[in-house]
Amino acid sequence: MQMIHSVKEMNKTIRQMKSSGKTIGFVPTMGFLHEGHQSLISQAKEMCDIVVLSIFVNPTQFGPNEDYLTYPRDIKRDKMIAEEEGVDIIFNPDADEMYPLGESMLVKVNDRVDVLCGRSRPGHFDGVATILIKLFNIIMPDKVFFGLKDAQQVAVVDSIIKNFHYPIQLIPCETKREEDGLAKSSRNVRLSADERQEAALLNKGLQEGLLLINKGERSVSRIKKCVTLFLETHLRLGKIDYVEVLSYPELQSATSITERFIIACAVQYKEARLIDNIVADLDPDLKGEQKQYVAHIDEK
Amino acid sequence: MQMIHSVKEMNKTIRQMKSSGKTIGFVPTMGFLHEGHQSLISQAKEMCDIVVLSIFVNPTQFGPNEDYLTYPRDIKRDKMIAEEEGVDIIFNPDADEMYPLGESMLVKVNDRVDVLCGRSRPGHFDGVATILIKLFNIIMPDKVFFGLKDAQQVAVVDSIIKNFHYPIQLIPCETKREEDGLAKSSRNVRLSADERQEAALLNKGLQEGLLLINKGERSVSRIKKCVTLFLETHLRLGKIDYVEVLSYPELQSATSITERFIIACAVQYKEARLIDNIVADLDPDLKGEQKQYVAHIDEK
Repeated sequence: MQMIHSVKEMNKTIRQMKSSGKTIGFVPTMGFLHEGHQSLISQAKEMCDIVVLSIFVNPTQFGPNEDYLTYPRDIKRDKMIAEEEGVDIIFNPDADEMYPLGESMLVKVNDRVDVLCGRSRPGHFDGVATILIKLFNIIMPDKVFFGLKDAQQVAVVDSIIKNFHYPIQLIPCETKREEDGLAKSSRNVRLSADERQEAALLNKGLQEGLLLINKGERSVSRIKKCVTLFLETHLRLGKIDYVEVLSYPELQSATSITERFIIACAVQYKEARLIDNIVADLDPDLKGEQKQYVAHIDEK
Repeated sequence: MQMIHSVKEMNKTIRQMKSSGKTIGFVPTMGFLHEGHQSLISQAKEMCDIVVLSIFVNPTQFGPNEDYLTYPRDIKRDKMIAEEEGVDIIFNPDADEMYPLGESMLVKVNDRVDVLCGRSRPGHFDGVATILIKLFNIIMPDKVFFGLKDAQQVAVVDSIIKNFHYPIQLIPCETKREEDGLAKSSRNVRLSADERQEAALLNKGLQEGLLLINKGERSVSRIKKCVTLFLETHLRLGKIDYVEVLSYPELQSATSITERFIIACAVQYKEARLIDNIVADLDPDLKGEQKQYVAHIDEK
């Protein structure tokens, strides 16, 4: 495994890979790797010749009151995990390397961001889009891997690729779950024992919504009400931040659900805010009876 | 010569070129080709295997009171000229093709834009940067060619390439001039006979500034004053819009000139606003005696 810190060396290495005809799979991260990242890496290994993992805590995607400086970092541990998972190259630049002219050019994202978690993080996705454009230009991947746990981020990456015409295939990867259905997250350790037990209900609430759709319901307000009611009834410790039903990946609200949709929720616990979602397609042939599945939003 | 309208076909064509090891030279234009473009094309032909010329009148770089709809277009004539000059591929998409998701993502340029012509065209370079990122991703050129006549645009392209880490070499091309020194421009035909004669003085004014520098002057305010005085004294018909002396390509103002600098002016005539500039380097070895020359601002 190679560890590269400079853009120049990365350019050279990528040029060599490309000229020998290797396909490049890219997993962008902010480090502090967990099972979610490991599953992205293993998906990338299956689909590509070379796997590049970037580790970069990107300052421009943190708000002024957010935790850029205290964001957990452990490059030694990350390196070990990446090596074990079979990563070929870690790209680990510093901020000066990625922002040689400071913030003199930024990408402004005007769509898909004023809903879900984006509503409470103004400018967050501007930072995400800016750093991804830099990374895409350096790494020139054939495929890029993101977890559907953060479905809004996947929607924004889809928009970056379409808006700026990147010849890159987006591979959204299924959310990894605990046995009781709780979405895996490094934040889960911040839950108390009682909170941890209750948190499995988030996914159950979303499944209630899907069940209703499978019975033929199409009204967004009724589906939303069903999920909200379930969570309100069953949660004693967590406080609902939002329940949303939107088109996917456009993240538009409508009165009835469209072809591809997302049911998403966020719940605040004492030390952790949890998010979860289901992305699914309506299957017209099954007359309202459709199974949930990972949406492959790339259409190339 | 191939004429391509769709991104998809362009992707396919570029992939073929790349895999056969051809280098790609790119000349981005808004069409209505003139001698300036022709000289960019011939420079590209000299330096690259394949020359791609884009013709696209980019809506996002026009202000609300500017002439997007009436901007001159003549694709038939452009095609003839391009063919004669030996262009290999014209890329001529429509706005829906380039902006498939509308203006849902735009690049915001925060630097090098609040001076010179950018001051009176807020948002202009945001549109320029946005379309260039799209075009760079589609055409994946090795070298990109821009005329130094619009030196601010060259400075912004330099910033795009550095900010977003494009593996592209910027080739700034010398301004073509009439025999009396007037910079060639399609706008020159809008000058009356008297205005046309007077317009040669713009370049002479800039040369006065350079002469002063060659005599050892380093004070920006004195150099600016010298050029302004020359133009004020000699122009009877044109009105000075600005005279500026700045670092290049950073376009920062300082009290004394630095290593690489630009002397630029804009003069308003009845039906045409003319711009001109000199970009030059101070040569420390010549103790203040330096020749004007085209700045190659790319350092790769």
